[in-house]
Amino acid sequence: MSSTSGQVIRCKAAVAWEAGKPLVIEEVEVAPPQANEVRLKILFTSLCHTDVYFWEAKGQTPLFPRIFGHEAGGIVESVGEGVTDLQPGDHVLPVFTGECKECRHCKSEESNMCDLLRINTDRGVMLNDGKSRFTINGQPIYHFVGTSTFSEYTVVHVGCVAKINPAAPLDKVCVLSCGISTGLGATLNVAKPPKGSSVAIFGLGAVGLAAAEGARIAGASRIIGVDLNSNRFAEGLNSYLSNAHFRLTAKKFGCTEFVNPKDYEKPVHEVIAEMTNGGVDRSVECTGSISAMISAFECVHDGWGVAVLVGVPNKDDAFKTHPMNVLNERTLKGTFFGNYKPRSDLPAVVEKYMNKELELEKFITHEVPFSEINKAFEYMLQGAGLRCIIRMDA
Amino acid sequence: MSSTSGQVIRCKAAVAWEAGKPLVIEEVEVAPPQANEVRLKILFTSLCHTDVYFWEAKGQTPLFPRIFGHEAGGIVESVGEGVTDLQPGDHVLPVFTGECKECRHCKSEESNMCDLLRINTDRGVMLNDGKSRFTINGQPIYHFVGTSTFSEYTVVHVGCVAKINPAAPLDKVCVLSCGISTGLGATLNVAKPPKGSSVAIFGLGAVGLAAAEGARIAGASRIIGVDLNSNRFAEGLNSYLSNAHFRLTAKKFGCTEFVNPKDYEKPVHEVIAEMTNGGVDRSVECTGSISAMISAFECVHDGWGVAVLVGVPNKDDAFKTHPMNVLNERTLKGTFFGNYKPRSDLPAVVEKYMNKELELEKFITHEVPFSEINKAFEYMLQGAGLRCIIRMDA
Repeated sequence: MSSTSGQVIRCKAAVAWEAGKPLVIEEVEVAPPQANEVRLKILFTSLCHTDVYFWEAKGQTPLFPRIFGHEAGGIVESVGEGVTDLQPGDHVLPVFTGECKECRHCKSEESNMCDLLRINTDRGVMLNDGKSRFTINGQPIYHFVGTSTFSEYTVVHVGCVAKINPAAPLDKVCVLSCGISTGLGATLNVAKPPKGSSVAIFGLGAVGLAAAEGARIAGASRIIGVDLNSNRFAEGLNSYLSNAHFRLTAKKFGCTEFVNPKDYEKPVHEVIAEMTNGGVDRSVECTGSISAMISAFECVHDGWGVAVLVGVPNKDDAFKTHPMNVLNERTLKGTFFGNYKPRSDLPAVVEKYMNKELELEKFITHEVPFSEINKAFEYMLQGAGLRCIIRMDA
Repeated sequence: MSSTSGQVIRCKAAVAWEAGKPLVIEEVEVAPPQANEVRLKILFTSLCHTDVYFWEAKGQTPLFPRIFGHEAGGIVESVGEGVTDLQPGDHVLPVFTGECKECRHCKSEESNMCDLLRINTDRGVMLNDGKSRFTINGQPIYHFVGTSTFSEYTVVHVGCVAKINPAAPLDKVCVLSCGISTGLGATLNVAKPPKGSSVAIFGLGAVGLAAAEGARIAGASRIIGVDLNSNRFAEGLNSYLSNAHFRLTAKKFGCTEFVNPKDYEKPVHEVIAEMTNGGVDRSVECTGSISAMISAFECVHDGWGVAVLVGVPNKDDAFKTHPMNVLNERTLKGTFFGNYKPRSDLPAVVEKYMNKELELEKFITHEVPFSEINKAFEYMLQGAGLRCIIRMDA
């Protein structure tokens, strides 16, 4: 038992008071965990597009004040009633989606879309009592996707916590909480490229590059990166290279070829079909653009091609293709969090990093102390780098 | 060697002289098979919608005079140069699509869309020399999909001939040449419903009922038939029952429940989702209607649902759905000829019939002598029954 167990903890958190306004480091009260909850001490967190999207809150019903953050690594401080899987001191990754282990999805080998703990971006409170565990002088501060890792301490449902190897460096594996696992799993668990196959990756942000990393690990022989920003592999990389944490070149992400659709008159799926004698074996779409989704589907080879959608579309988008493209034995699949079940599967992904199969360092391009968390937002808004680690103790 | 080997054979064939006009039984000359071709004596053939579609030739570039027919069973009469897999006397099923065993598709475990011998409805001649093997007093008569089984003898590329167990009754297994295998394979090879799962079948013609038969064989516990014509399971079946060849009831086709979309105000995918607590595990679309295709996709459960498209759409159709339906871990697949490779896989399908796993008799609702082949067209145009066997020797 830690000395803080059962007590309210007062600590620092970065609070978003209003949409799009810089976060403010505040002293917050964090209530003890209730039944099936755990309280975590967050050591490292990183910033993902999803945080920025809901912080900007454009076209959304805004939910403020709120504590964002969902990619993180930490240590269990205390556990609530009924929690038997975890104990204080366990090294964990909190995850924005959960695994209750009881519902049809959790019992299915194929799904990770838990009925109870599936991501809910509209909910700012805990499931147990419909209330927040964060307050500032009694005023509740909303949670974000059940994780709220931009706080030195946070309370999370036990179903949203993956217990990992305590030897794993949390400042590296924290990025597996969301984006990197999403891209990696899309390739390894869903697209499943055979050894020696060709794979097209649409969108070369962190998720897309993680999908490329998955293709590299799977042994794909051609990995074609598709991005509207050709600078990602020219100036972009040079700017990464100027960062002390970035030591690797484009090829290390697995990409063997690059296509910028802007460089061609013809549709990009035709460009790729010509490059690959009829189409790639697999494609993974990581932009969320509807036209990229359609191209990703239409660029796979008939007979065996599989396209996997990862990027989140707009509300009014319509995926549209001629049904013959389907009938000619193409497969279209979607995935959420790379089809990983957070509690069951993430520990093995951490082990992939530990045994050097998976490289994470190349995704980490920036690092800031917690006190400068707004810089992480600036980097992302500028499109600079991939992942910025926020050190909570600094 | 048969006595006719190397000779032109004169025999009866049902010739379509003009689009939509009754076939005429004519005496035709059938040239000997050239390299990689075999000449078959057809014993039984059946009529499929595809024959009728190209015979009607609506909105097509018509190709007449032509000998239709592609579901059949026969015996090898003679073989051309280089044919080593087959010899005179072998029992075979000619198939409208082929398997060269050399191309990337044939070498892929997943595809059956042979580059060389994939179905080509526009070609009315043999690949070898671009000419027909049929003539009437020197006038060439076009082939149809490389099979032209409405003839006592026909010439087929060796890659389009499946050698089967000689003990199999050709008047039954001939229906495996096209429609029944298409539906059966869509379920068994592509949808692959787990034991105890739920399956929706859109369209309850011969192909759809074969898909239901596949679901029954796979051990699905709920098989929901969807058809706009509710008579299929009321009057329709009674009219089948009046046929001497039809001894079975609807349940024998595997369907446990029926939905007529016309009976509901709400979209059929919502009706099915309500019946099944969120959606079926698998669906198979066998109508070719674009709205049925979209419903078949949208009625599968998120997390694990797989929809398989079989029916052939119109040229201008667009498959359209919200991409979130894909992202929520649904899978959309298409199949052609049930993903069976004709030469490699059909012999095992015949064995499924021989060991009584697969029931074929229930698909055979009519039988006519070759001289009355136009009656088979009438039955199909009336929507009466499922398959009409045409006996060539009568």
